[in-house]
Amino acid sequence: MTRHFDEDLEALRRRLLEMGELALRMIGNASRVLEGQDESFGRAVGEDEELVNRLHVEIDDECLRLIALHQPAAGDLRLIAAALKVNTDLERIADQAVNVAETGAFLAKAPRAKLGDIPRMVELASSMVKDALAAFSRRDVELARSVVARDDEEDRLKSETLTKWLSQMQKDSSDVQRGLDLILVSRNLERIADHATNIAEDVVFMVLGQDIRHSAGKAQKAP
Amino acid sequence: MTRHFDEDLEALRRRLLEMGELALRMIGNASRVLEGQDESFGRAVGEDEELVNRLHVEIDDECLRLIALHQPAAGDLRLIAAALKVNTDLERIADQAVNVAETGAFLAKAPRAKLGDIPRMVELASSMVKDALAAFSRRDVELARSVVARDDEEDRLKSETLTKWLSQMQKDSSDVQRGLDLILVSRNLERIADHATNIAEDVVFMVLGQDIRHSAGKAQKAP
Repeated sequence: MTRHFDEDLEALRRRLLEMGELALRMIGNASRVLEGQDESFGRAVGEDEELVNRLHVEIDDECLRLIALHQPAAGDLRLIAAALKVNTDLERIADQAVNVAETGAFLAKAPRAKLGDIPRMVELASSMVKDALAAFSRRDVELARSVVARDDEEDRLKSETLTKWLSQMQKDSSDVQRGLDLILVSRNLERIADHATNIAEDVVFMVLGQDIRHSAGKAQKAP
Repeated sequence: MTRHFDEDLEALRRRLLEMGELALRMIGNASRVLEGQDESFGRAVGEDEELVNRLHVEIDDECLRLIALHQPAAGDLRLIAAALKVNTDLERIADQAVNVAETGAFLAKAPRAKLGDIPRMVELASSMVKDALAAFSRRDVELARSVVARDDEEDRLKSETLTKWLSQMQKDSSDVQRGLDLILVSRNLERIADHATNIAEDVVFMVLGQDIRHSAGKAQKAP
């Protein structure tokens, strides 16, 4: 029974990582849409979303099945609870990648230089998702904490994008559409970083049983 | 044991409803900030957020404690799994209310007539949260489905807000700041409606064991 349970948990871990890989690929392809590379990348994002949605439902099912069947306690229960939450966050990350790709289709005519801090935000958000997943997979608390720490930088880039483009939109009405799109994309990316932060916080809880959400040391979120 | 478990589940239900009442009060007070009524409402939103954050951590703890202690199966397990998710959604609703209040502080000088569809969006989002909580409390699948059905209207109002203000911002640069703020607030409200929809979907799963998320009949989300 215990051996079987360990195998089930390992299979669950692998499926979550598979879903995470899909979400990361979606972010990558959405950013190619932003850069105006090719509209086939937008279609790829839509196709991956279908796969993510299917995994979302299946992984939730599997978590409940494991709880009902094995009646886990302590660390095993925390792992399954974390899996339930990571599953939700990955699905939302995928949703945000779809949003980026959709707005990106409008922006695609703008040359890369005009994207400002957006490529940097894509890179940072992707690295946070990647490391949050690695931290989950390896039960690596230090890596998880480093993901949480990076969230402030993404918030800062989002705020700067807003300030910069707001003033540009006020100066030149021909920049209103592009400025608005970039502001909205920056918020999608910042939400991806938030979800990566959630995953990292779940890893700390899973490994240490310590809830670091809403802790005093954590910076408040900007709107 | 069973009787004790029933009492524990009833206590869990009551705490979630308490958290839901706080989230609803935050939306109401955030909308008063939008209408420029009084800055004390903004402080009230911040104070309620603290309470919501505390409940968020406590309810998660309680759900895991109940699973470990009572090893629930079938309907009871679905109820606790739903409680875990409703807890997350309520905390995110509270976050969005904080965002509305913060942007609202900038907007507060605009007369009410200039808010366009925003008061309607506040009303609709609040009614969705209220009914999603009532559906959870009463295990009312029909009411839950009516919440899911209302989400399209909130999406539509959000899209209209974007179209209308984008064109206004292009016409008159003195409207850029206000237009952007209204567009961002409309997105916060639409996300509140999304979270209410998530809660309603969890109610259907909790009662019927049927997962209606990502189902073919459901309209795709706009970005």
